Amino acid sequence: MDGRAAAGWRSYDALIDCALVDDIGGGDVTTLATIPAETRARGVLLAKAPGVISGLDVAAAVFHRVDPTIRFTPLVADGAVVVPGQPIAEAQGSARGLLMGERLALNLLQRLSGVATQTARFVAAVEGSGARIVDTRKTTPGLRALEKAAVRDGGGANHRFGLSDGVLIKDNHLAAVGGPDRVAKAVRLARARAPHGLKIEVEVTTLDELRQALAAGADIVLLDNMPPAMMADAVCITAGGALLEASGGVSLETVRTIAESGVDLISVGALTHSAPALDISLDFALE
Amino acid sequence: MDGRAAAGWRSYDALIDCALVDDIGGGDVTTLATIPAETRARGVLLAKAPGVISGLDVAAAVFHRVDPTIRFTPLVADGAVVVPGQPIAEAQGSARGLLMGERLALNLLQRLSGVATQTARFVAAVEGSGARIVDTRKTTPGLRALEKAAVRDGGGANHRFGLSDGVLIKDNHLAAVGGPDRVAKAVRLARARAPHGLKIEVEVTTLDELRQALAAGADIVLLDNMPPAMMADAVCITAGGALLEASGGVSLETVRTIAESGVDLISVGALTHSAPALDISLDFALE
Amino acid sequence: MDGRAAAGWRSYDALIDCALVDDIGGGDVTTLATIPAETRARGVLLAKAPGVISGLDVAAAVFHRVDPTIRFTPLVADGAVVVPGQPIAEAQGSARGLLMGERLALNLLQRLSGVATQTARFVAAVEGSGARIVDTRKTTPGLRALEKAAVRDGGGANHRFGLSDGVLIKDNHLAAVGGPDRVAKAVRLARARAPHGLKIEVEVTTLDELRQALAAGADIVLLDNMPPAMMADAVCITAGGALLEASGGVSLETVRTIAESGVDLISVGALTHSAPALDISLDFALE
Amino acid sequence: MDGRAAAGWRSYDALIDCALVDDIGGGDVTTLATIPAETRARGVLLAKAPGVISGLDVAAAVFHRVDPTIRFTPLVADGAVVVPGQPIAEAQGSARGLLMGERLALNLLQRLSGVATQTARFVAAVEGSGARIVDTRKTTPGLRALEKAAVRDGGGANHRFGLSDGVLIKDNHLAAVGGPDRVAKAVRLARARAPHGLKIEVEVTTLDELRQALAAGADIVLLDNMPPAMMADAVCITAGGALLEASGGVSLETVRTIAESGVDLISVGALTHSAPALDISLDFALE
Amino acid sequence: MDGRAAAGWRSYDALIDCALVDDIGGGDVTTLATIPAETRARGVLLAKAPGVISGLDVAAAVFHRVDPTIRFTPLVADGAVVVPGQPIAEAQGSARGLLMGERLALNLLQRLSGVATQTARFVAAVEGSGARIVDTRKTTPGLRALEKAAVRDGGGANHRFGLSDGVLIKDNHLAAVGGPDRVAKAVRLARARAPHGLKIEVEVTTLDELRQALAAGADIVLLDNMPPAMMADAVCITAGGALLEASGGVSLETVRTIAESGVDLISVGALTHSAPALDISLDFALE
Amino acid sequence: MDGRAAAGWRSYDALIDCALVDDIGGGDVTTLATIPAETRARGVLLAKAPGVISGLDVAAAVFHRVDPTIRFTPLVADGAVVVPGQPIAEAQGSARGLLMGERLALNLLQRLSGVATQTARFVAAVEGSGARIVDTRKTTPGLRALEKAAVRDGGGANHRFGLSDGVLIKDNHLAAVGGPDRVAKAVRLARARAPHGLKIEVEVTTLDELRQALAAGADIVLLDNMPPAMMADAVCITAGGALLEASGGVSLETVRTIAESGVDLISVGALTHSAPALDISLDFALE
Repeated sequence: MDGRAAAGWRSYDALIDCALVDDIGGGDVTTLATIPAETRARGVLLAKAPGVISGLDVAAAVFHRVDPTIRFTPLVADGAVVVPGQPIAEAQGSARGLLMGERLALNLLQRLSGVATQTARFVAAVEGSGARIVDTRKTTPGLRALEKAAVRDGGGANHRFGLSDGVLIKDNHLAAVGGPDRVAKAVRLARARAPHGLKIEVEVTTLDELRQALAAGADIVLLDNMPPAMMADAVCITAGGALLEASGGVSLETVRTIAESGVDLISVGALTHSAPALDISLDFALE
Repeated sequence: MDGRAAAGWRSYDALIDCALVDDIGGGDVTTLATIPAETRARGVLLAKAPGVISGLDVAAAVFHRVDPTIRFTPLVADGAVVVPGQPIAEAQGSARGLLMGERLALNLLQRLSGVATQTARFVAAVEGSGARIVDTRKTTPGLRALEKAAVRDGGGANHRFGLSDGVLIKDNHLAAVGGPDRVAKAVRLARARAPHGLKIEVEVTTLDELRQALAAGADIVLLDNMPPAMMADAVCITAGGALLEASGGVSLETVRTIAESGVDLISVGALTHSAPALDISLDFALE
Repeated sequence: MDGRAAAGWRSYDALIDCALVDDIGGGDVTTLATIPAETRARGVLLAKAPGVISGLDVAAAVFHRVDPTIRFTPLVADGAVVVPGQPIAEAQGSARGLLMGERLALNLLQRLSGVATQTARFVAAVEGSGARIVDTRKTTPGLRALEKAAVRDGGGANHRFGLSDGVLIKDNHLAAVGGPDRVAKAVRLARARAPHGLKIEVEVTTLDELRQALAAGADIVLLDNMPPAMMADAVCITAGGALLEASGGVSLETVRTIAESGVDLISVGALTHSAPALDISLDFALE
Repeated sequence: MDGRAAAGWRSYDALIDCALVDDIGGGDVTTLATIPAETRARGVLLAKAPGVISGLDVAAAVFHRVDPTIRFTPLVADGAVVVPGQPIAEAQGSARGLLMGERLALNLLQRLSGVATQTARFVAAVEGSGARIVDTRKTTPGLRALEKAAVRDGGGANHRFGLSDGVLIKDNHLAAVGGPDRVAKAVRLARARAPHGLKIEVEVTTLDELRQALAAGADIVLLDNMPPAMMADAVCITAGGALLEASGGVSLETVRTIAESGVDLISVGALTHSAPALDISLDFALE
Repeated sequence: MDGRAAAGWRSYDALIDCALVDDIGGGDVTTLATIPAETRARGVLLAKAPGVISGLDVAAAVFHRVDPTIRFTPLVADGAVVVPGQPIAEAQGSARGLLMGERLALNLLQRLSGVATQTARFVAAVEGSGARIVDTRKTTPGLRALEKAAVRDGGGANHRFGLSDGVLIKDNHLAAVGGPDRVAKAVRLARARAPHGLKIEVEVTTLDELRQALAAGADIVLLDNMPPAMMADAVCITAGGALLEASGGVSLETVRTIAESGVDLISVGALTHSAPALDISLDFALE
Repeated sequence: MDGRAAAGWRSYDALIDCALVDDIGGGDVTTLATIPAETRARGVLLAKAPGVISGLDVAAAVFHRVDPTIRFTPLVADGAVVVPGQPIAEAQGSARGLLMGERLALNLLQRLSGVATQTARFVAAVEGSGARIVDTRKTTPGLRALEKAAVRDGGGANHRFGLSDGVLIKDNHLAAVGGPDRVAKAVRLARARAPHGLKIEVEVTTLDELRQALAAGADIVLLDNMPPAMMADAVCITAGGALLEASGGVSLETVRTIAESGVDLISVGALTHSAPALDISLDFALE
């Protein structure tokens, strides 16, 4: 079973087709003009910066879609830590096909490796603290399963995939429920009505709300934008009675302090919404 | 005609559908448990950081797809410069629908506004130099037309959309052509064979190659990773005989110096592949 | 040519993809947590009740889509009569892949075998009478060609596939035509205007209408909810001048009596709209 | 927000399009031959048997797709209990359009109302016992979200939507884990590796395995095919320490006894895989 | 109900989307550069040659897809005979939208009107002879239903839509059946096994084969490439016992002679595979 | 890399699937009735008229889609000139599969070879004149890339693929720009705003407009419907300062005269919108 299935079952055929139409819908006029159809070549994907690789399966799928006779051979596995200059994968076949698949394969691989690399930085920053780095739903439209796999490749863990596989009562839900006991009320509503296999998580901004949540039986409590000292108090109050998740304003500068407050989970939107691409190039030689 | 058509005709229905299935395929269990079907609300999209907005059309399309009765009203236009706290758009309708569309609308708006904002920073950095900031094909798979529109919203210009609407002979093409006069040879091949409506651009790394390109009649020359001083020489040598595009190693720190070398165009992959998301939130009130 | 083409050309890729996204869109969290990627297994599909098998091709296609390296081997053919405990097919490969494809493969196989089994019961009930059991358009949306094939696997025959390959003038058409001679009028309209390659069938509820239909040259007459005695009269009146189809209120209890009236065809909606699934399980062993 | 979104976000456009192509891809030759384009009519959907209605939204969508000018008016809501002869909905517009949409609309409505009706029978059978009737993943490929909504319309509750939103360790997973303590081992693996927002459910067949499961901290235990007396013992042993789900061999005859054993949940595959269609017809009058 | 449904239910959304992506996927660079977004215009579709119009619905759908605010008003109906200079339809709205939809709308309208016009020429050529002009399956991939509707608009009749709604035993089937009595054998096979609602048509090349076909009970006989005199003999021999269809080598020069042989149907592949486009232009004026 | 990629990257899977559903959605009732599943056959595609072949790749794809075990062997290459009776390709495999794929494969091959043949006629007519025959955007919706490849197979060259890869200012754009200097104004607008890699082409109808266009720096000028003598004047006036394209009223009778005026390009809509199909048949023998 390939990595794509492991990442949640999605067919990337449609995404790849659509992106290839964007890129070469009317033909690759430069390649057709300068490179004969029979020229064969070998391209090596090289890391140009240190990082963690993710997305080799989907890069392979791109070349396969452009030309099924191209042979794509990964030289490392997803999750591998690479150094500048290190070969990541090799693709052999028609020179035209390699050049037509190059950009899309790199666009995917650079972005996903960027997510894995960014995740690895956060994971390293909290090492030994016991806190786990988790992702959010702030992913690129169309790429969620791939980006969630990239987070795992970087050593992080996945929060819920979407709105269907996790109950998370947020500020807007609490506003809709209303009243001073809205946290407790919302937790009770969710316990009664949400699917029985899902834990109940609720967002709180004060220690009072935390106490309400615990009393109402929340399984997980999200501490929204709390100062680290208040988070430490929250850990004391909770005393293992629920999982605690820190969220909001998490950066590489602040994440260690947050982790040391004793929370169980730290969710970081920037893993996926603001990770810079990892620099990777395709080195090309005729055969 | 809406902005999407202006950005190149693409239907974003499939992208939106696919992303909604990812996010709420099995239903929004939290919202269904805590918010009655009849509750109505009003959400305001607020900038949380300074930036340039892009993507309002597609955000509107998301809410429309989730619930056609939601009324989405932009309060600024794409390309607007916003300050923290500034309302960007308002959405009114079913509270459930607003919450189900919120994340995808924000994921798109934050990413596209991030691209526009990043572009605006580069454009500002070269102001008055005469150089234009242009994008690349290093876009997010599936989002190219939207990201190219975001570059324009940020004040940049678009390079070719894909491999079909521009001839750009790059290092890998030159390697395939081969020989000491490969630049000239490749330009001549392209003149003879590429569609007659397209200008011929070729990548060079030395001034010698530049001279070959000009002699062979290249319309545009891409100066790959040249030091600014060499670029200034290139400008002298070219003397207006072709457009010059600087590419490679362009950052906010280096872009001004590059622009002052006198080149016509500066292409920046980071506009699209590494722009951090612009922070935008949805403020929610019951009606 | 595979069985799917025989059943009418449909690509089941879209159906399978859509159902797999429903079932494992965010990943099979249980399997990923408990079974290592490298574990290999062998699953045997076993009948748990007596019946007729249908759908082996599409079950094979499911496993192939989840993991192309799974080897699926049918042990009987579509149309085979099986006894409880009898192995139907075997699938070998990645344990994860087998578990991820299991439910969808079974859902299809159980439903289609249920249709074949139900059909076989009706066919057996009329054996020797000369009447043929035929299906209707009351099929599961998206599965028509598969269910029509299942009817054939159970020994039944197919009525028209849809509204395009058979003229059948029903009560609502007659109501629109109107008048005491509406049956004759409608048959004449159809003869004049319908494609010349299609026979004309009309629904009647009285013997008078039957006579009108025959006089107007109907090729087939559907006797709607007639008591068996009236059907016998209809057979006499028709005297081989048209095919007669009995329809309405047909159950396993009544079908023999209906068949003995001498009608040519008995159409049974329950073959497809109310057939209980055939119980089939996947027995699993590590390799 | 319409009911379809509530049922889990799925676009039924593709399903409806595909089913309409099956049914009227080459045109409705009978209707075109017998009914003029300008004829207008009014159709009333009538229950022909007692039951619970589900699927009005998607039936409306069918008529809308065939002809957007048809006005479809539900006369009851999903979940309504109807008696034979009771009007369910009304559709007005082009006679041709009504006849072309009729079969698909009925096929969906009859199946989904069949599921709701079957569910209501099971729910009634356990009334007062405290046990909840839940569905399974044994749904019709392509119709899962609609059938899960139908179960709710019938008064049942939903088990997990798919493999991504619930951990359920079944016999095949246990076989893969292996060893006499495989239940405990598998529960511990799942606790460590499955998404933190999901409860852990495990299938057991003996009271020993139940004790293992409880000791390992399972949140929910599925009692597979246990005799009611053994289930009652299981309830005693568990003493509220986990939810208990009865599964296997559940029929309308046995469900009450099972419920009285004190289990919390009873899952019934037959709600979706073997529910007979509810008989509904379209009564048609010219306008 | 719109004309598309009448032509056989097909959604042309996918065709239109795909063709628009081909034409304006990267944007209409000329229009964007030369015409401001706010310019409004009025375009009149004018016939430039005499002919019969077909395809107004799908032309309207193109403009609607490009820009839903464009108002498209047909000035004639499908099937109308037009003279050079005659206005066919009018489109009003955004100048950009009109220019972006123009080419695709014209490509469809010109082709379909070309088919209707070609059909009308054949129909006129056989006027009064009693023979009907029918189409074949030699249609443009993707456009079959539209082209079959165009044939009707031109006064022709439709042969079967595809392989599912008509039995037509051709030379290749006869070759597979084999033997000197292959015509009779094949007709009997088809009677026994084909759906009971379909008439049996068989292709013959000699009068002997015709006699075989009639004796075996063929409903329709296709006379393949017979000289008109032999066709007249065939008409005598058949004496109304079956429909006769002439096929092969039919041109505007030969069709009258063929018709006068007394055959019932003349099928003409050139109606769809070789009809020249009808010249239609879009006249444009600012508003 | 296959020919389809060379023609511009398009997946023809969707086109083929859609056309197969049209043709054999409900099954090939004739073939199923008359030919056993196990019969194997060999079909030879034969030219029935002289012409140029195009479309072998997509014909192969059709048979592959119907039955992946059919072996399709081209006997000539795209672009080959064939004589009547010449074998073009051979397909071996299941007789049923061959018959089910035959019509669609032929419909594509005949149309595309028709386009190539028509192009070759125009190319031959201008041989030696120095003018190139180019196509237009008047292609069949859905088949543009295939038809553009067919034009190349016939010896012609491609004009822009769509509106995104070429600037062509036409009468309607000029009308929108307005004023006596509208040609010059429009060219200047396009220079300033269109993508920098595209040449600027403008349509003119008088020599005055031509002078305006040249003065404003147009790269290519389209001479719309000019008499050949005026075109010769235009060639003198232009004196190599821009490419000249003749357009409008081009037929096989007039094209030589037009070419001899000295224009560089002659665009011919009829290459694609009115090319008669090349007659090709499938000869079938059992194996």
